Amino acid sequence: MEHRTRLDAYVREIEQALNTYLPALDTAQAYVQEAMRYSLLSPGKRIRPMLTLEFCRVCGGDTAAAMPFACALEMVHCYSLIHDDLPCMDDDAMRRGRPTNHVVYGEDFAVLSGDGLQTAAFETALTSTLPADTVLAAVRELAGAAGVYGMLGGQAVDIRTDGKLPNADALLEMYAMKTGALIRAAGRLGCIAAGAMERTCAADRYTQAVGLAFQLRDDLLDLDRDAEDARTTYPALMGIAATRVRIDELTGQAIAAAREFRDADFLVWLAQYLAGREL
Amino acid sequence: MEHRTRLDAYVREIEQALNTYLPALDTAQAYVQEAMRYSLLSPGKRIRPMLTLEFCRVCGGDTAAAMPFACALEMVHCYSLIHDDLPCMDDDAMRRGRPTNHVVYGEDFAVLSGDGLQTAAFETALTSTLPADTVLAAVRELAGAAGVYGMLGGQAVDIRTDGKLPNADALLEMYAMKTGALIRAAGRLGCIAAGAMERTCAADRYTQAVGLAFQLRDDLLDLDRDAEDARTTYPALMGIAATRVRIDELTGQAIAAAREFRDADFLVWLAQYLAGREL
Repeated sequence: MEHRTRLDAYVREIEQALNTYLPALDTAQAYVQEAMRYSLLSPGKRIRPMLTLEFCRVCGGDTAAAMPFACALEMVHCYSLIHDDLPCMDDDAMRRGRPTNHVVYGEDFAVLSGDGLQTAAFETALTSTLPADTVLAAVRELAGAAGVYGMLGGQAVDIRTDGKLPNADALLEMYAMKTGALIRAAGRLGCIAAGAMERTCAADRYTQAVGLAFQLRDDLLDLDRDAEDARTTYPALMGIAATRVRIDELTGQAIAAAREFRDADFLVWLAQYLAGREL
Repeated sequence: MEHRTRLDAYVREIEQALNTYLPALDTAQAYVQEAMRYSLLSPGKRIRPMLTLEFCRVCGGDTAAAMPFACALEMVHCYSLIHDDLPCMDDDAMRRGRPTNHVVYGEDFAVLSGDGLQTAAFETALTSTLPADTVLAAVRELAGAAGVYGMLGGQAVDIRTDGKLPNADALLEMYAMKTGALIRAAGRLGCIAAGAMERTCAADRYTQAVGLAFQLRDDLLDLDRDAEDARTTYPALMGIAATRVRIDELTGQAIAAAREFRDADFLVWLAQYLAGREL
Protein backbone atom coordinates (compact mmCIF):
# COMPACT_ATOMS: atom_id res chain seq x y z
CA MET A 1 0.00 0.00 0.00
CA GLU A 2 1.27 3.46 -0.82
CA HIS A 3 2.17 5.27 2.42
CA ARG A 4 -0.07 8.26 1.96
CA THR A 5 -2.95 5.89 1.16
CA ARG A 6 -2.31 3.97 4.37
CA LEU A 7 -2.17 7.20 6.36
CA ASP A 8 -5.48 8.39 4.90
CA ALA A 9 -7.08 5.00 5.53
CA TYR A 10 -5.96 5.07 9.16
CA VAL A 11 -7.35 8.58 9.67
CA ARG A 12 -10.68 7.51 8.16
CA GLU A 13 -10.92 4.37 10.31
CA ILE A 14 -9.96 6.28 13.44
CA GLU A 15 -12.53 9.00 12.82
CA GLN A 16 -15.25 6.42 12.18
CA ALA A 17 -14.36 4.67 15.40
CA LEU A 18 -14.30 7.92 17.41
CA ASN A 19 -17.77 8.70 16.07
CA THR A 20 -18.97 5.27 17.18
CA TYR A 21 -17.37 5.36 20.63
CA LEU A 22 -18.82 8.80 21.33
CA PRO A 23 -22.20 8.85 19.54
CA ALA A 24 -24.59 11.80 19.48
CA LEU A 25 -27.21 11.44 22.24
CA ASP A 26 -30.85 12.46 22.29
CA THR A 27 -31.10 12.40 26.08
CA ALA A 28 -30.83 15.21 28.62
CA GLN A 29 -27.04 14.98 28.39
CA ALA A 30 -27.07 15.65 24.63
CA TYR A 31 -25.46 19.06 24.94
CA VAL A 32 -22.31 18.06 26.78
CA GLN A 33 -21.85 15.07 24.48
CA GLU A 34 -22.24 17.44 21.51
CA ALA A 35 -19.53 19.68 22.97
CA MET A 36 -17.27 16.65 23.39
CA ARG A 37 -17.95 15.54 19.82
CA TYR A 38 -17.32 19.04 18.45
CA SER A 39 -13.69 18.91 19.52
CA LEU A 40 -13.07 15.19 19.17
CA LEU A 41 -14.39 14.99 15.61
CA SER A 42 -12.72 18.22 14.44
CA PRO A 43 -10.20 17.41 11.74
CA GLY A 44 -6.88 16.31 13.21
CA LYS A 45 -3.71 14.52 12.26
CA ARG A 46 -4.61 11.54 14.53
CA ILE A 47 -0.92 10.82 15.03
CA ARG A 48 -1.29 9.09 18.39
CA PRO A 49 -4.02 6.62 17.42
CA MET A 50 -2.29 6.02 14.10
CA LEU A 51 0.92 5.03 15.88
CA THR A 52 -1.05 2.62 18.06
CA LEU A 53 -2.64 0.94 15.06
CA GLU A 54 0.62 0.76 13.12
CA PHE A 55 2.66 -0.64 16.01
CA CYS A 56 -0.05 -3.23 16.54
CA ARG A 57 0.20 -4.14 12.84
CA VAL A 58 4.00 -4.38 12.71
CA CYS A 59 3.87 -6.56 15.83
CA GLY A 60 1.58 -8.94 13.93
CA GLY A 61 -1.62 -7.93 15.74
CA ASP A 62 -5.10 -7.17 14.47
CA THR A 63 -5.42 -3.38 14.22
CA ALA A 64 -9.13 -3.62 15.09
CA ALA A 65 -8.14 -4.95 18.51
CA ALA A 66 -6.00 -1.85 19.08
CA MET A 67 -8.77 0.61 18.16
CA PRO A 68 -10.19 1.12 21.70
CA PHE A 69 -6.72 2.01 22.98
CA ALA A 70 -5.96 4.17 19.93
CA CYS A 71 -9.17 6.16 20.34
CA ALA A 72 -8.68 6.45 24.10
CA LEU A 73 -5.35 8.20 23.47
CA GLU A 74 -6.96 10.59 21.01
CA MET A 75 -9.63 11.42 23.62
CA VAL A 76 -6.99 12.21 26.25
CA HIS A 77 -5.13 14.37 23.73
CA CYS A 78 -8.38 16.15 22.83
CA TYR A 79 -9.39 16.78 26.46
CA SER A 80 -6.01 18.38 27.07
CA LEU A 81 -6.41 20.67 24.05
CA ILE A 82 -9.87 21.85 25.20
CA HIS A 83 -8.58 22.69 28.68
CA ASP A 84 -5.34 24.24 27.35
CA ASP A 85 -7.39 26.59 25.18
CA LEU A 86 -9.47 27.89 28.13
CA PRO A 87 -9.27 31.60 28.97
CA CYS A 88 -7.52 30.78 32.26
CA MET A 89 -4.88 28.76 30.38
CA ASP A 90 -3.65 29.76 26.88
CA ASP A 91 -6.86 31.68 26.07
CA ASP A 92 -7.02 30.58 22.46
CA ALA A 93 -10.15 31.42 20.48
CA MET A 94 -9.23 29.39 17.39
CA ARG A 95 -7.72 25.95 16.82
CA ARG A 96 -7.06 24.62 13.33
CA GLY A 97 -9.29 27.27 11.79
CA ARG A 98 -12.32 26.56 13.98
CA PRO A 99 -13.51 28.38 17.12
CA THR A 100 -12.30 26.60 20.25
CA ASN A 101 -14.67 24.63 22.45
CA HIS A 102 -15.28 27.36 25.04
CA VAL A 103 -16.02 29.91 22.32
CA VAL A 104 -18.80 27.68 20.99
CA TYR A 105 -20.11 26.02 24.17
CA GLY A 106 -19.02 28.39 26.93
CA GLU A 107 -16.31 27.98 29.50
CA ASP A 108 -18.44 25.83 31.79
CA PHE A 109 -19.15 23.28 29.08
CA ALA A 110 -15.56 23.40 27.86
CA VAL A 111 -14.43 22.39 31.35
CA LEU A 112 -17.10 19.69 31.47
CA SER A 113 -16.47 18.37 27.98
CA GLY A 114 -12.75 18.06 28.67
CA ASP A 115 -13.56 16.22 31.88
CA GLY A 116 -16.01 14.02 30.02
CA LEU A 117 -13.48 13.20 27.30
CA GLN A 118 -11.00 12.05 29.89
CA THR A 119 -13.62 9.74 31.41
CA ALA A 120 -14.66 8.60 27.93
CA ALA A 121 -11.04 7.74 27.18
CA PHE A 122 -10.97 5.23 30.02
CA GLU A 123 -14.45 3.92 29.17
CA THR A 124 -13.37 3.44 25.56
CA ALA A 125 -10.14 1.63 26.44
CA LEU A 126 -12.17 -0.58 28.78
CA THR A 127 -14.46 -1.69 25.93
CA SER A 128 -11.56 -3.79 24.65
CA THR A 129 -12.39 -7.50 24.48
CA LEU A 130 -8.73 -8.54 24.74
CA PRO A 131 -7.73 -10.68 27.75
CA ALA A 132 -8.20 -8.92 31.10
CA ASP A 133 -4.45 -8.78 31.82
CA THR A 134 -3.84 -7.11 28.47
CA VAL A 135 -6.59 -4.54 28.98
CA LEU A 136 -5.30 -3.76 32.47
CA ALA A 137 -1.77 -3.27 31.17
CA ALA A 138 -3.12 -0.92 28.50
CA VAL A 139 -5.26 1.14 30.85
CA ARG A 140 -2.36 1.47 33.30
CA GLU A 141 -0.23 2.72 30.41
CA LEU A 142 -2.92 5.22 29.44
CA ALA A 143 -3.34 6.58 32.97
CA GLY A 144 0.40 6.83 33.53
CA ALA A 145 0.94 8.74 30.29
CA ALA A 146 -1.90 11.15 31.06
CA GLY A 147 -0.98 11.86 34.68
CA VAL A 148 1.42 13.85 36.76
CA TYR A 149 4.48 11.95 35.47
CA GLY A 150 3.26 12.42 31.91
CA MET A 151 1.14 14.89 29.96
CA LEU A 152 -0.42 16.65 32.95
CA GLY A 153 2.92 17.00 34.72
CA GLY A 154 4.49 18.52 31.61
CA GLN A 155 1.65 20.98 31.22
CA ALA A 156 1.93 21.91 34.91
CA VAL A 157 5.68 22.56 34.62
CA ASP A 158 5.15 24.57 31.45
CA ILE A 159 2.52 26.80 33.09
CA ARG A 160 4.32 27.06 36.41
CA THR A 161 7.52 28.27 34.74
CA ASP A 162 5.48 30.53 32.44
CA GLY A 163 7.04 28.78 29.46
CA LYS A 164 10.49 29.95 30.52
CA LEU A 165 12.57 26.86 31.21
CA PRO A 166 16.15 27.71 32.27
CA ASN A 167 18.05 25.37 29.94
CA ALA A 168 17.75 22.71 27.26
CA ASP A 169 17.74 19.82 29.74
CA ALA A 170 14.78 21.22 31.66
CA LEU A 171 13.02 22.00 28.40
CA LEU A 172 13.54 18.49 27.02
CA GLU A 173 12.31 17.00 30.30
CA MET A 174 9.15 19.09 30.06
CA TYR A 175 8.66 18.09 26.39
CA ALA A 176 9.14 14.42 27.26
CA MET A 177 6.18 14.72 29.63
CA LYS A 178 3.90 17.24 27.94
CA THR A 179 3.92 15.85 24.41
CA GLY A 180 6.28 12.86 24.63
CA ALA A 181 4.34 10.74 27.11
CA LEU A 182 1.21 10.24 25.02
CA ILE A 183 3.22 9.58 21.84
CA ARG A 184 5.32 7.03 23.69
CA ALA A 185 2.17 5.44 25.09
CA ALA A 186 0.79 5.26 21.54
CA GLY A 187 3.57 2.92 20.46
CA ARG A 188 3.40 0.86 23.63
CA LEU A 189 -0.36 0.43 23.41
CA GLY A 190 0.02 -0.91 19.88
CA CYS A 191 2.52 -3.52 21.07
CA ILE A 192 0.31 -4.39 24.05
CA ALA A 193 -2.76 -4.81 21.82
CA ALA A 194 -0.75 -7.21 19.64
CA GLY A 195 0.25 -9.21 22.73
CA ALA A 196 3.86 -8.16 22.13
CA MET A 197 4.86 -6.64 25.47
CA GLU A 198 8.48 -7.54 24.67
CA ARG A 199 8.49 -5.04 21.79
CA THR A 200 7.56 -1.99 23.91
CA CYS A 201 11.18 -0.91 24.43
CA ALA A 202 11.90 -0.92 20.72
CA ALA A 203 8.68 1.01 20.20
CA ASP A 204 9.86 3.53 22.82
CA ARG A 205 13.05 4.16 20.88
CA TYR A 206 10.98 5.07 17.84
CA THR A 207 8.26 7.13 19.56
CA GLN A 208 10.64 9.05 21.82
CA ALA A 209 12.69 10.13 18.82
CA VAL A 210 9.65 10.87 16.66
CA GLY A 211 7.86 12.69 19.48
CA LEU A 212 10.77 15.01 20.14
CA ALA A 213 11.45 15.62 16.44
CA PHE A 214 7.78 16.51 16.00
CA GLN A 215 7.97 18.93 18.96
CA LEU A 216 11.15 20.57 17.66
CA ARG A 217 9.57 20.99 14.25
CA ASP A 218 6.63 22.64 16.01
CA ASP A 219 9.09 24.97 17.77
CA LEU A 220 10.54 25.97 14.40
CA LEU A 221 7.07 26.63 13.00
CA ASP A 222 6.17 28.69 16.08
CA LEU A 223 9.33 30.70 15.57
CA ASP A 224 8.16 31.61 12.09
CA ARG A 225 4.66 32.44 13.29
CA ASP A 226 5.35 34.47 16.39
CA ALA A 227 8.71 36.14 16.66
CA GLU A 228 7.56 38.13 19.71
CA ASP A 229 6.88 35.03 21.80
CA ALA A 230 9.16 34.99 24.82
CA ARG A 231 8.66 31.30 25.60
CA THR A 232 11.73 29.15 25.84
CA THR A 233 11.95 26.86 22.86
CA TYR A 234 14.71 24.60 21.69
CA PRO A 235 15.66 26.80 18.73
CA ALA A 236 15.61 29.87 20.99
CA LEU A 237 18.16 28.19 23.27
CA MET A 238 20.23 26.29 20.73
CA GLY A 239 19.72 28.10 17.45
CA ILE A 240 17.76 27.19 14.35
CA ALA A 241 20.59 25.35 12.61
CA ALA A 242 21.31 23.15 15.63
CA THR A 243 17.59 22.41 15.92
CA ARG A 244 17.47 21.27 12.30
CA VAL A 245 20.49 19.03 12.89
CA ARG A 246 18.82 17.60 16.01
CA ILE A 247 15.61 16.86 14.10
CA ASP A 248 17.62 14.99 11.47
CA GLU A 249 19.47 12.99 14.12
CA LEU A 250 16.22 12.09 15.85
CA THR A 251 14.65 11.07 12.57
CA GLY A 252 17.65 8.85 11.89
CA GLN A 253 17.26 7.26 15.32
CA ALA A 254 13.56 6.70 14.70
CA ILE A 255 14.28 5.05 11.35
CA ALA A 256 16.83 2.75 12.95
CA ALA A 257 14.31 1.82 15.67
CA ALA A 258 11.61 1.21 13.05
CA ARG A 259 13.93 -1.25 11.29
CA GLU A 260 13.74 -3.47 14.39
CA PHE A 261 10.19 -4.31 13.25
CA ARG A 262 9.22 -6.31 10.18
CA ASP A 263 7.36 -4.46 7.40
CA ALA A 264 8.52 -1.13 8.82
CA ASP A 265 8.40 0.98 5.66
CA PHE A 266 5.39 2.99 6.78
CA LEU A 267 7.00 3.74 10.18
CA VAL A 268 10.14 4.89 8.35
CA TRP A 269 8.09 7.13 6.06
CA LEU A 270 6.04 8.43 9.00
CA ALA A 271 9.17 9.43 10.94
CA GLN A 272 10.23 11.58 8.00
CA TYR A 273 6.72 12.90 7.43
CA LEU A 274 6.33 13.97 11.08
CA ALA A 275 9.75 15.64 11.06
CA GLY A 276 8.54 17.81 8.21
CA ARG A 277 10.50 16.00 5.56
CA GLU A 278 7.50 14.89 3.57
CA LEU A 279 8.72 12.58 0.83
CA MET B 1 -17.44 -1.63 67.74
CA GLU B 2 -19.46 1.46 68.51
CA HIS B 3 -20.75 2.98 65.25
CA ARG B 4 -19.22 6.41 65.68
CA THR B 5 -15.89 4.76 66.48
CA ARG B 6 -16.08 2.70 63.30
CA LEU B 7 -16.94 5.80 61.29
CA ASP B 8 -13.98 7.71 62.73
CA ALA B 9 -11.66 4.76 62.12
CA TYR B 10 -12.78 4.54 58.49
CA VAL B 11 -12.20 8.26 57.95
CA ARG B 12 -8.72 7.98 59.47
CA GLU B 13 -7.79 4.96 57.35
CA ILE B 14 -9.15 6.57 54.19
CA GLU B 15 -7.25 9.80 54.78
CA GLN B 16 -4.03 7.91 55.45
CA ALA B 17 -4.51 5.96 52.22
CA LEU B 18 -5.29 9.11 50.20
CA ASN B 19 -2.09 10.64 51.52
CA THR B 20 -0.14 7.56 50.43
CA TYR B 21 -1.71 7.25 46.98
CA LEU B 22 -1.08 10.95 46.27
CA PRO B 23 2.19 11.77 48.04
CA ALA B 24 3.85 15.17 48.07
CA LEU B 25 6.50 15.37 45.32
CA ASP B 26 9.83 17.17 45.26
CA THR B 27 10.08 17.14 41.48
CA ALA B 28 9.20 19.80 38.91
CA GLN B 29 5.54 18.74 39.16
CA ALA B 30 5.43 19.43 42.91
CA TYR B 31 3.09 22.40 42.57
CA VAL B 32 0.24 20.69 40.74
CA GLN B 33 0.46 17.70 43.06
CA GLU B 34 0.30 20.12 46.01
CA ALA B 35 -2.84 21.68 44.53
CA MET B 36 -4.36 18.22 44.15
CA ARG B 37 -3.46 17.31 47.72
CA TYR B 38 -4.84 20.60 49.05
CA SER B 39 -8.36 19.66 48.00
CA LEU B 40 -8.13 15.89 48.38
CA LEU B 41 -6.81 16.02 51.94
CA SER B 42 -9.13 18.80 53.09
CA PRO B 43 -11.42 17.47 55.81
CA GLY B 44 -14.40 15.65 54.34
CA LYS B 45 -17.08 13.19 55.30
CA ARG B 46 -15.54 10.48 53.08
CA ILE B 47 -18.97 8.94 52.58
CA ARG B 48 -18.23 7.29 49.25
CA PRO B 49 -15.01 5.51 50.22
CA MET B 50 -16.56 4.57 53.55
CA LEU B 51 -19.47 2.87 51.79
CA THR B 52 -17.01 0.94 49.63
CA LEU B 53 -15.08 -0.31 52.63
CA GLU B 54 -18.22 -1.20 54.59
CA PHE B 55 -19.90 -3.06 51.72
CA CYS B 56 -16.67 -4.96 51.21
CA ARG B 57 -16.71 -5.87 54.91
CA VAL B 58 -20.36 -6.96 55.06
CA CYS B 59 -19.75 -9.09 51.95
CA GLY B 60 -16.98 -10.87 53.86
CA GLY B 61 -14.10 -9.19 52.04
CA ASP B 62 -10.87 -7.65 53.29
CA THR B 63 -11.41 -3.88 53.51
CA ALA B 64 -7.73 -3.28 52.63
CA ALA B 65 -8.40 -4.84 49.22
CA ALA B 66 -11.18 -2.31 48.62
CA MET B 67 -9.03 0.71 49.51
CA PRO B 68 -7.76 1.52 45.97
CA PHE B 69 -11.34 1.59 44.69
CA ALA B 70 -12.57 3.55 47.72
CA CYS B 71 -9.88 6.21 47.28
CA ALA B 72 -10.45 6.35 43.53
CA LEU B 73 -14.08 7.30 44.16
CA GLU B 74 -13.04 10.01 46.58
CA MET B 75 -10.63 11.40 43.96
CA VAL B 76 -13.37 11.53 41.32
CA HIS B 77 -15.66 13.26 43.83
CA CYS B 78 -12.90 15.73 44.70
CA TYR B 79 -12.06 16.54 41.08
CA SER B 80 -15.72 17.34 40.45
CA LEU B 81 -15.83 19.69 43.45
CA ILE B 82 -12.74 21.60 42.29
CA HIS B 83 -14.18 22.10 38.81
CA ASP B 84 -17.69 22.89 40.13
CA ASP B 85 -16.21 25.67 42.27
CA LEU B 86 -14.47 27.37 39.31
CA PRO B 87 -15.49 30.93 38.45
CA CYS B 88 -17.02 29.70 35.16
CA MET B 89 -19.14 27.16 37.06
CA ASP B 90 -20.57 27.90 40.56
CA ASP B 91 -17.88 30.49 41.35
CA ASP B 92 -17.48 29.49 44.99
CA ALA B 93 -14.62 31.03 46.95
CA MET B 94 -15.06 28.87 50.05
CA ARG B 95 -15.73 25.18 50.64
CA ARG B 96 -16.09 23.77 54.15
CA GLY B 97 -14.52 26.85 55.66
CA ARG B 98 -11.42 26.84 53.47
CA PRO B 99 -10.66 28.84 50.32
CA THR B 100 -11.44 26.82 47.21
CA ASN B 101 -8.69 25.41 45.02
CA HIS B 102 -8.69 28.19 42.41
CA VAL B 103 -8.55 30.87 45.11
CA VAL B 104 -5.35 29.33 46.44
CA TYR B 105 -3.69 27.98 43.29
CA GLY B 106 -5.27 30.03 40.51
CA GLU B 107 -7.84 28.98 37.92
CA ASP B 108 -5.27 27.35 35.66
CA PHE B 109 -4.02 25.05 38.39
CA ALA B 110 -7.55 24.37 39.61
CA VAL B 111 -8.41 23.10 36.13
CA LEU B 112 -5.19 21.07 36.03
CA SER B 113 -5.52 19.67 39.54
CA GLY B 114 -9.08 18.53 38.84
CA ASP B 115 -7.86 16.89 35.66
CA GLY B 116 -5.00 15.31 37.53
CA LEU B 117 -7.26 13.96 40.26
CA GLN B 118 -9.43 12.26 37.67
CA THR B 119 -6.36 10.59 36.18
CA ALA B 120 -5.09 9.74 39.67
CA ALA B 121 -8.43 8.10 40.44
CA PHE B 122 -7.92 5.61 37.62
CA GLU B 123 -4.25 5.13 38.46
CA THR B 124 -5.20 4.45 42.08
CA ALA B 125 -7.94 1.95 41.23
CA LEU B 126 -5.46 0.23 38.91
CA THR B 127 -2.98 -0.31 41.76
CA SER B 128 -5.33 -3.01 43.05
CA THR B 129 -3.71 -6.43 43.26
CA LEU B 130 -7.04 -8.27 43.02
CA PRO B 131 -7.52 -10.61 40.03
CA ALA B 132 -7.47 -8.81 36.67
CA ASP B 133 -11.15 -9.53 35.96
CA THR B 134 -12.12 -7.99 39.29
CA VAL B 135 -10.01 -4.88 38.75
CA LEU B 136 -11.43 -4.45 35.25
CA ALA B 137 -14.99 -4.75 36.56
CA ALA B 138 -14.20 -2.14 39.20
CA VAL B 139 -12.56 0.34 36.82
CA ARG B 140 -15.47 -0.02 34.38
CA GLU B 141 -17.84 0.74 37.26
CA LEU B 142 -15.77 3.79 38.19
CA ALA B 143 -15.67 5.18 34.66
CA GLY B 144 -19.38 4.58 34.12
CA ALA B 145 -20.32 6.34 37.34
CA ALA B 146 -18.09 9.32 36.53
CA GLY B 147 -19.16 9.77 32.93
CA VAL B 148 -21.93 11.14 30.81
CA TYR B 149 -24.49 8.65 32.12
CA GLY B 150 -23.43 9.40 35.68
CA MET B 151 -21.90 12.30 37.61
CA LEU B 152 -20.77 14.34 34.61
CA GLY B 153 -24.11 13.92 32.84
CA GLY B 154 -25.97 15.07 35.94
CA GLN B 155 -23.75 18.10 36.29
CA ALA B 156 -24.23 18.92 32.59
CA VAL B 157 -28.04 18.71 32.89
CA ASP B 158 -27.97 20.82 36.05
CA ILE B 159 -25.92 23.57 34.39
CA ARG B 160 -27.72 23.39 31.07
CA THR B 161 -31.12 23.87 32.74
CA ASP B 162 -29.64 26.56 35.00
CA GLY B 163 -30.77 24.50 38.02
CA LYS B 164 -34.41 24.88 36.98
CA LEU B 165 -35.73 21.39 36.29
CA PRO B 166 -39.40 21.41 35.24
CA ASN B 167 -40.74 18.73 37.58
CA ALA B 168 -39.85 16.24 40.29
CA ASP B 169 -39.20 13.39 37.84
CA ALA B 170 -36.62 15.40 35.88
CA LEU B 171 -35.08 16.59 39.15
CA LEU B 172 -34.79 13.06 40.55
CA GLU B 173 -33.27 11.85 37.28
CA MET B 174 -30.64 14.59 37.50
CA TYR B 175 -29.94 13.77 41.18
CA ALA B 176 -29.59 10.08 40.33
CA MET B 177 -26.78 11.01 37.96
CA LYS B 178 -25.11 13.99 39.62
CA THR B 179 -24.83 12.65 43.17
CA GLY B 180 -26.46 9.22 42.97
CA ALA B 181 -24.10 7.55 40.51
CA LEU B 182 -20.92 7.80 42.61
CA ILE B 183 -22.73 6.74 45.80
CA ARG B 184 -24.22 3.77 43.97
CA ALA B 185 -20.78 2.91 42.58
CA ALA B 186 -19.40 3.08 46.12
CA GLY B 187 -21.59 0.19 47.24
CA ARG B 188 -20.97 -1.82 44.09
CA LEU B 189 -17.20 -1.40 44.31
CA GLY B 190 -17.27 -2.76 47.85
CA CYS B 191 -19.12 -5.87 46.68
CA ILE B 192 -16.78 -6.25 43.70
CA ALA B 193 -13.68 -5.95 45.92
CA ALA B 194 -15.11 -8.72 48.13
CA GLY B 195 -15.64 -10.92 45.06
CA ALA B 196 -19.39 -10.70 45.67
CA MET B 197 -20.70 -9.48 42.31
CA GLU B 198 -24.03 -11.16 43.15
CA ARG B 199 -24.61 -8.69 46.00
CA THR B 200 -24.37 -5.54 43.86
CA CYS B 201 -28.15 -5.31 43.34
CA ALA B 202 -28.85 -5.44 47.06
CA ALA B 203 -26.15 -2.81 47.54
CA ASP B 204 -27.85 -0.66 44.89
CA ARG B 205 -31.12 -0.76 46.84
CA TYR B 206 -29.28 0.64 49.85
CA THR B 207 -27.11 3.22 48.13
CA GLN B 208 -29.85 4.54 45.84
CA ALA B 209 -32.09 5.17 48.83
CA VAL B 210 -29.30 6.59 50.98
CA GLY B 211 -27.97 8.74 48.14
CA LEU B 212 -31.33 10.35 47.47
CA ALA B 213 -32.13 10.82 51.16
CA PHE B 214 -28.74 12.52 51.58
CA GLN B 215 -29.47 14.79 48.61
CA LEU B 216 -32.95 15.70 49.89
CA ARG B 217 -31.50 16.51 53.29
CA ASP B 218 -29.01 18.75 51.52
CA ASP B 219 -31.93 20.44 49.75
CA LEU B 220 -33.57 21.13 53.12
CA LEU B 221 -30.35 22.58 54.51
CA ASP B 222 -29.93 24.76 51.40
CA LEU B 223 -33.49 26.00 51.89
CA ASP B 224 -32.56 27.19 55.37
CA ARG B 225 -29.32 28.76 54.18
CA ASP B 226 -30.42 30.54 51.06
CA ALA B 227 -34.10 31.39 50.77
CA GLU B 228 -33.41 33.56 47.71
CA ASP B 229 -32.05 30.67 45.65
CA ALA B 230 -34.25 30.13 42.61
CA ARG B 231 -32.93 26.63 41.87
CA THR B 232 -35.45 23.87 41.63
CA THR B 233 -35.14 21.61 44.66
CA TYR B 234 -37.33 18.78 45.84
CA PRO B 235 -38.75 20.76 48.80
CA ALA B 236 -39.40 23.74 46.51
CA LEU B 237 -41.48 21.50 44.24
CA MET B 238 -43.10 19.20 46.80
CA GLY B 239 -43.00 21.11 50.06
CA ILE B 240 -40.90 20.70 53.17
CA ALA B 241 -43.23 18.29 54.94
CA ALA B 242 -43.43 15.95 51.93
CA THR B 243 -39.64 16.07 51.64
CA ARG B 244 -39.27 15.02 55.28
CA VAL B 245 -41.70 12.15 54.71
CA ARG B 246 -39.75 11.10 51.60
CA ILE B 247 -36.46 11.12 53.51
CA ASP B 248 -38.00 8.87 56.16
CA GLU B 249 -39.37 6.48 53.54
CA LEU B 250 -35.99 6.31 51.81
CA THR B 251 -34.22 5.71 55.10
CA GLY B 252 -36.66 2.88 55.80
CA GLN B 253 -35.92 1.39 52.38
CA ALA B 254 -32.18 1.68 53.00
CA ILE B 255 -32.49 -0.06 56.36
CA ALA B 256 -34.48 -2.89 54.79
CA ALA B 257 -31.81 -3.24 52.08
CA ALA B 258 -29.04 -3.21 54.69
CA ARG B 259 -30.74 -6.11 56.49
CA GLU B 260 -30.07 -8.26 53.41
CA PHE B 261 -26.43 -8.28 54.54
CA ARG B 262 -25.03 -9.98 57.62
CA ASP B 263 -23.62 -7.76 60.38
CA ALA B 264 -25.49 -4.76 58.94
CA ASP B 265 -25.86 -2.64 62.07
CA PHE B 266 -23.37 -0.02 60.92
CA LEU B 267 -25.10 0.32 57.53
CA VAL B 268 -28.42 0.74 59.36
CA TRP B 269 -26.92 3.40 61.59
CA LEU B 270 -25.22 5.11 58.64
CA ALA B 271 -28.50 5.35 56.71
CA GLN B 272 -30.01 7.24 59.64
CA TYR B 273 -26.88 9.32 60.17
CA LEU B 274 -26.75 10.42 56.53
CA ALA B 275 -30.46 11.27 56.54
CA GLY B 276 -29.75 13.69 59.38
CA ARG B 277 -31.25 11.51 62.07
CA GLU B 278 -28.06 11.11 64.03
CA LEU B 279 -28.77 8.57 66.79
